[in-house]
Formats: sequence, structure tokens, C-alpha cells
Amino acid sequence: MTRSFTISVPASSANIGPGFDVLGISLTLYLKLDVKIDPAVSYEDPHNCKITYEGEGAESVPLVADNNLITRTALYVLRCNGIRTFPTGTHVNVNNPIPLGRGLGSSGAAVVAGVILGNEIGKLGFSKQRMLDYCLMIERHPDNITAAMMGGFVGSYLRELSAADLERIEIPLAEVLPEPAGGADTGLVPPEPPMNIGHHIKYGWAKEIKAIAIIPNFELSTATSRDVLPTAYTRKDAIFNLQRLSVLTTALTRSPPDADLIYPAMQDKLHQPYRKTLVPGLTEILASVTPKTHPGLLGICLSGAGPTILALATERFEEIAQEILARFAKEKIQCTWKLLEPADDGATVTEH
Amino acid sequence: MTRSFTISVPASSANIGPGFDVLGISLTLYLKLDVKIDPAVSYEDPHNCKITYEGEGAESVPLVADNNLITRTALYVLRCNGIRTFPTGTHVNVNNPIPLGRGLGSSGAAVVAGVILGNEIGKLGFSKQRMLDYCLMIERHPDNITAAMMGGFVGSYLRELSAADLERIEIPLAEVLPEPAGGADTGLVPPEPPMNIGHHIKYGWAKEIKAIAIIPNFELSTATSRDVLPTAYTRKDAIFNLQRLSVLTTALTRSPPDADLIYPAMQDKLHQPYRKTLVPGLTEILASVTPKTHPGLLGICLSGAGPTILALATERFEEIAQEILARFAKEKIQCTWKLLEPADDGATVTEH
Repeated sequence: MTRSFTISVPASSANIGPGFDVLGISLTLYLKLDVKIDPAVSYEDPHNCKITYEGEGAESVPLVADNNLITRTALYVLRCNGIRTFPTGTHVNVNNPIPLGRGLGSSGAAVVAGVILGNEIGKLGFSKQRMLDYCLMIERHPDNITAAMMGGFVGSYLRELSAADLERIEIPLAEVLPEPAGGADTGLVPPEPPMNIGHHIKYGWAKEIKAIAIIPNFELSTATSRDVLPTAYTRKDAIFNLQRLSVLTTALTRSPPDADLIYPAMQDKLHQPYRKTLVPGLTEILASVTPKTHPGLLGICLSGAGPTILALATERFEEIAQEILARFAKEKIQCTWKLLEPADDGATVTEH
Repeated sequence: MTRSFTISVPASSANIGPGFDVLGISLTLYLKLDVKIDPAVSYEDPHNCKITYEGEGAESVPLVADNNLITRTALYVLRCNGIRTFPTGTHVNVNNPIPLGRGLGSSGAAVVAGVILGNEIGKLGFSKQRMLDYCLMIERHPDNITAAMMGGFVGSYLRELSAADLERIEIPLAEVLPEPAGGADTGLVPPEPPMNIGHHIKYGWAKEIKAIAIIPNFELSTATSRDVLPTAYTRKDAIFNLQRLSVLTTALTRSPPDADLIYPAMQDKLHQPYRKTLVPGLTEILASVTPKTHPGLLGICLSGAGPTILALATERFEEIAQEILARFAKEKIQCTWKLLEPADDGATVTEH
């Protein structure tokens, strides 16, 4: 009996405005996995899995089941539940429109897709909340993950773990995952993740607001982008962000959106000022493209760790995008742009 | 022609959980001013104002118009608008149930009451938003002020002022206010405050949630309570608060309230840990009175700069209050307690 289904996981933008390591918005740009399991077919792969791939990253993403982030994650979920490998004749076709390393949650989407793939393949019947626990074992920053899984506009954090939970978490994934991370397959059944690692809340979203993503043509690794951050902040800067965050999450739910409230509430002192050297033109864009110069604009921020810029607006999307593109062009940076919205449903599975 | 009216201003609690210098809740405990202006009566006071006072602070609050915080504030508002003093025969009777120096916004309420008094006396016709600007010239922390004026549960902050605005603000109030602050009355007309100094947003509030205020019988000045705070925080602690704040403001609007979401979201690392020496028993109370030990409890925090403790709960109010009272008693601290709710209307004026 063959089975086929599609897993769809949205891109996402984290660190919205003052919400560094907190806020995430899922975006209507979907990583898609078309999965077909045909027991009559046998692929030449130790894990019974053939991967094909189209779209962003096609030239660089590994297509071996125990090395590809999506299928490796699925294997981890399966192994936690006593299943060693994919069933005979598994074919995963990946279609990925999310650019890699640009701050649009491509790896978060891959992890979410992998966990859902494991849940489906193993018929584990986990809820999205439980699948989040698995995601958070692999990717410790919940902002992109939660947005991609749950959809919409979310705030999230990891709960403080008990000593017993920490012990379970601290088992290196390399020991329980297949090669190349873990050397020989030891047959070890990894422990299941603790329950409810992540807390989150899903906010409302005023339907008039769309997200313009301006995507520069260079990659920025999250690690590089975190290295430039200070390890301490003044009380004044910490409170600056708290105050704006307190207004932003609720202001974005109100119709019609109020630019006078939202624009100042999108300001940040914890990460963007330190990342301006990594994204030439950022400071100037943040300071000079405003609701006064561009009516309809609500606010601008770095998407995730950058270099993508996210502009929230209610109209004149093309005009706002072209202005930011022109400013990047002055810095000799070419960009593409996309008009997106929050992906309300988050990750979905459709059986065929 | 005599005129009489009542000004009513609620108490408030600031710094709710992770919302240090951000969140404020107005509380159903009202400072009341009964004002009567009878031009046929002449009081022996250079400002034509007689003050009588009942309630908290009756033994210590000055009853001279240019020294009492309420009437002094009213005089400031009047002078900004070219009116030198109260009309002949002004009698202000103050009834104040808000304990002083306990973290329940007594001075914020006095400033709000004073600005409204000035607005009424001078028939200035200001909106609440404009009256907030006047309040924020006198008291630079908007949390209590905004909650008391606007009512409900609010997030607020001061906008970053332009150089020109800063110049206006930096004129010492002492120069424009009457004695004892300002020496001789110079006849100077102080500048009006800049417009829209404060930004704020009013959140929803789940109707099931009530606030238990446990009020120790000692005062703590805001200045003392701020002196113990560090001037810098680690990135980890700053993000800890941002993450919880992002959940809390929305979680408190949802019915039925979810203790699993709210209790961890009420945690703070920016001010409460530093204030435990000033409020004996605080750390133990925060750590051990939980929704597990006391079902119905949603969260506990210091109210403002303390020493009052605010517990949010949906039931068993008496039991929760008695538990906290017993813990304070072990530290030889006597308390009273009140069951309160957000005061939705904020400050009000009723003409008679």
C-alpha cells in the first residue's frame, strides 16, 4: 500500500523590532515536502530514503538522509520512539522557496518539517505542542520554530528546566543521531524530550498589515550575527526594549493599525545597533524610511539575524520596497523583495 | 455662583511581573477630592484655597496649597496657562484611602488628581492624553500615572524627546511653581509641556482575575528601592524579562485565564531579586506560593517599588492572602490586605 502526503511549513521572521529572541511571525512562503512511501520500491540508501530537492539551496543542500537537516531531524524523532529508520521506499521531494541564511527562518522551517515528517512516518500522533518539544531539542531558539509550527504572530520562550530535565537535554544529539554526527549507529534509543519545553502565545494580527521582506543577495550566519552582540546592557537600554515590546504586541492586533503607536514601538536597542556593520545601509534605512516619508509604512526592522529587512505596512508596498532597494543599491547590495502575510495555519499536513 | 465637583483617581500597581518600568494596573481604591468653589467665602490663604484631609497620610500631609502635592500640581497647571492662583473661596476636601509609600501609586494618584483639579478650576478643557503630558512633567515615570489617569491595565513609556522639547522640560519646576519650591513668586508663566510625551496602550483584562494587595505596615521610598538596582544587566536577564513580558500582556486578556501560561510569565530578573533585602520574606513568598500550592493563584509580584505584594488570582482570595500574611508574620511584619480589581474608567470628574 503506497501512502503519499504533503508537509507545508512557512518561512518566518524573528526578533521583530524590540522583540529580540522573543517575537516571531510566520510568513506566506512555504517549504513543501511531497512524501511518497511505496514499499514496492527499494532505494539505494541505508535509511531507505531518497531525497530530491528543488529551489533555494539546491546546489548545496546534502541529499543523504542522515545528513540532510530535514530527514536527519525525522530520524531523530523516529529513534526517540524506537523506530530505527524510514520504511522501505520512502521518497521525499523538497521544494524550498525560502532563501538560506538570510534571516527568514529556513533552518527553523527545515527542523519543523523534519519533526512533522518523523511524526507522520512513525504514526506517532503527536500534537503540535509536543512536536515543538522535539524541535526545541534541535534548535534552542524558539522564535522561528514556534512561528513556523503554530503560525501567525507569536511570542515564545523556553521554560527554565529542572535538573532532571537538563540532564536529559544535555545528552549530546550526536550520540543518538545517525552519521555523520554520531559515528557508528550504536542502537541507542535516545530519551524522549521533556514535555512543554516551550511556552508561547499567539497574538492577533490586524488584517490590513502586510510584511514586505527585502532580501539582500548575501548570507549572514546566525552565529556571526550573534558574535557582534554585547553580553550586557545598560538598565536604560533593557527598559527601552521592554517598554516598546509591551506596546507592540497589542498595537499590531488593533484595526485600523496606528502608525503613531507602532512605529516608535518597533524601535530596538538590543541587537540592531550592533548589527549595522554586518548589514551596510541598515542604520540609515531604519532612521530615514518612516511613516512621515512613506505613508502606509508602520515600522521597519531586521528579520531574524539579518540581512533581510522586514517592513510592515498597510499600503504603497511597491514604493516602500523600491525605496529600501535603492538605499541598498547605494551600498552596492542587490536585493529581491516579496510581499508576504502571516501564515495563520503554520505547518500543515495534507494526505493524498 | 458656587460650583462643586468630585475628582476620583484610582490607586495603581506598577512593575507587574517582568514589566519593570512598563506595566501598570489601576486598582479600585480611590483618592477622592470634593471641591467646592464659593466666591462668597474668603479663606485665609494666599492662594484662596482651603484644604481639609481625611484618611491615609492625614497626620503628615501638608495642608497648605503651595506645599500640598495635589494643589501644588494644580497651581502648576494653572500657571502654565496664565492663571496665577485658585479662585476665591476654593475648598478642597481630600479623602485618601491609598496608603503612602507602599507601592500603590499614592503620589501618582495625587499628581493625576492635581492636574485634573487644575484643568477643572481653569476650565482648560484638556483631554486625558494632554493632561498626561502635564503629569509627566512632574512625575517622570509613566506607569502609575498612566494607569491612574486612563484606567485598566496599561503599558506605557515616554517618547524620546527632541532637543527643543528637552530644553522645555529641563526648566526646573521649582522656578515656575510657588513656594516653598520656588522662592518668591516671580510672575513667570511656565512653558506648556510638549505634546504627547507619553505613549501608552490599554490591554484587555480577563474579568475573572482579581488583584489581592498585601500591604506591609512599613514604608519604602521609591528612591531607596531604586538605589539597590544595578545599572547594567546580562543579555540573558534582559531577554528573560522580554520573553515573559511578551506572553504576560496578552495572557491576562484571555478567558479563562491559564495559570500555566501566566505564572511563569510573571517572573522577573530585573528588579525583584535586588529588592529582597528591602522586603524581608519576598524571595520565599515568590518562590513558594504557587498555583500548585494554591489553586486559583495566577502569579505574584512586588507592587511598584514595594513593599506591597500583588497576587493575581481567580478564587480562594482569602486563603492566598492569609498564606502571604502568615509568611510576613514570620518576619515580624504585620500587614493588611485588600481585594481589588482594575479600575476601568481611571480618573473621573463628577459635577454636582
